[in-house]
Amino acid sequence: MAKIVQCVPNFSEGRRKEVVETIVAEIEGVGGVKLLDWQTNESHNRAVVTFVGEPDAVKEAAFKAARKAAEVINMEEHKGAHPRMGATDVIPFIPISGVTMDECIDLARELGRRIAEELKIPVYLYEEAAFRAERKNLAAVRKGEYEGLKETISLPERHPDFGAPRLHPTAGATAVGARPPLIAFNINLDTDDVSIAKKIARAIRGSSGGFRDVKALGIMMEERNVAQVTINMCNYKTAPLYRVFEVVKAEAARYGVNVLGSEIVGLTPADALIEVAEYYLRLEGFRKDQVLEKRLQE
Amino acid sequence: MAKIVQCVPNFSEGRRKEVVETIVAEIEGVGGVKLLDWQTNESHNRAVVTFVGEPDAVKEAAFKAARKAAEVINMEEHKGAHPRMGATDVIPFIPISGVTMDECIDLARELGRRIAEELKIPVYLYEEAAFRAERKNLAAVRKGEYEGLKETISLPERHPDFGAPRLHPTAGATAVGARPPLIAFNINLDTDDVSIAKKIARAIRGSSGGFRDVKALGIMMEERNVAQVTINMCNYKTAPLYRVFEVVKAEAARYGVNVLGSEIVGLTPADALIEVAEYYLRLEGFRKDQVLEKRLQE
Repeated sequence: MAKIVQCVPNFSEGRRKEVVETIVAEIEGVGGVKLLDWQTNESHNRAVVTFVGEPDAVKEAAFKAARKAAEVINMEEHKGAHPRMGATDVIPFIPISGVTMDECIDLARELGRRIAEELKIPVYLYEEAAFRAERKNLAAVRKGEYEGLKETISLPERHPDFGAPRLHPTAGATAVGARPPLIAFNINLDTDDVSIAKKIARAIRGSSGGFRDVKALGIMMEERNVAQVTINMCNYKTAPLYRVFEVVKAEAARYGVNVLGSEIVGLTPADALIEVAEYYLRLEGFRKDQVLEKRLQE
Repeated sequence: MAKIVQCVPNFSEGRRKEVVETIVAEIEGVGGVKLLDWQTNESHNRAVVTFVGEPDAVKEAAFKAARKAAEVINMEEHKGAHPRMGATDVIPFIPISGVTMDECIDLARELGRRIAEELKIPVYLYEEAAFRAERKNLAAVRKGEYEGLKETISLPERHPDFGAPRLHPTAGATAVGARPPLIAFNINLDTDDVSIAKKIARAIRGSSGGFRDVKALGIMMEERNVAQVTINMCNYKTAPLYRVFEVVKAEAARYGVNVLGSEIVGLTPADALIEVAEYYLRLEGFRKDQVLEKRLQE
């Protein structure tokens, strides 16, 4: 099966599109890489680029993008609403198909080392790629942001995982990590009572004692006048779509509320949906390579 | 999205493996084609080859295989339990991904014309590719088999769709067609009473008034001592997996019987499983290109 890794680097430039385009061009110039999407946010002053491909090609594209970002972005002049510490702020690698999380962790660490050595930008490893447990959480890594980290990076507990303990004078520092794919999954309830959606969100999200890798909020969809549980599925293997859906259905039932439907926003790996089919059809002994398209990728 | 067509030609040779291998080698020699499987059956004296690829490559591979089969198989000497009328007996094209049925019908007709013109083998178009409604059914096309067709091919109603109304002296005639992918889907019941499986099979199969494109039998799985509804899903778009599964569950319930589980034998297109997920999650407005792997094929 073809090995497919996704990479979603975030860059600290969201206003000068022509600058972001030069970074995107570096990614597109690498053979074996496919650009899926790029978006800028003015108030965040930040760009998010999504691309996929074979592991080595994705790693090379991420390096070239980080090198270009260090040339064209000056953190001394950067202001934006989103927390950030570097020109290339974060680079997560995400296993999509035929690739393990361990391979993505290796990619992150190899890239991190190269960025530190060749670009002289200090690198922190986060999420699954973290060397230190306290760095799994990106918010902890980025604490103080670019301005604060200028001082605190010299403290032993804030030393980078690769590179010298001082910020690059214009490109700051970069966090490189590995994480499972995230699926944006919303479930609409047959009620206009948002308090029910909020209660259900609490039941399923890890921070309130629900599924560890699920984030959820109850909100009102004003245009349809229905309450919605809006969910980030941060790991569809530990908390599959069908399980979260069934719990939402069961919790809604105690309030006499039905589930109207659901939606997936943006992209999802095929496996996340195939596992839903396996569950509801009670499929026994199904192997992913029985999916014709997977055989074609072999 | 990459266009992917599957082709499953059947050849009238199932005993001399080295002969089948020369045919398979023709297919493997065409760039852009991927061989998925080939199997021979001694009592049928027949080989079934499965391959996939871009439409034009698949068409070319099918032609080269038919040309080779005409060289190495002599129908005058062929005996076997399976009905057949030619060295290359049938060639179905099956749309898998990014390809319509109409495109597969065109492929079948183009290939049929070429086989008749270049190999002097008469060709009948069947199933979705048929010019005449009475030829949709392969059994009707093949009536009388090789031996009988020697005479009857001269009757106007048995004239081939391409080529002169006489059999090739050693390669006979070939049926070329287009059809949806077939999914072999079995559902196991929590009972050892095979009569319940037989009743459920009658409820769902087209020939007894059930779903038009479903074939089903009730059988006993001796090794597990459970009754099974064994199903050929001949068109997962008109009769989706979830719908057939839900009807089997509902019919089993009237006998106080639960569904233990199900299995898919062999390959399935990803879409057949993705539609199951869409149904059970009540997904609203889902587009197939939200599946990451599909975006990669673009």
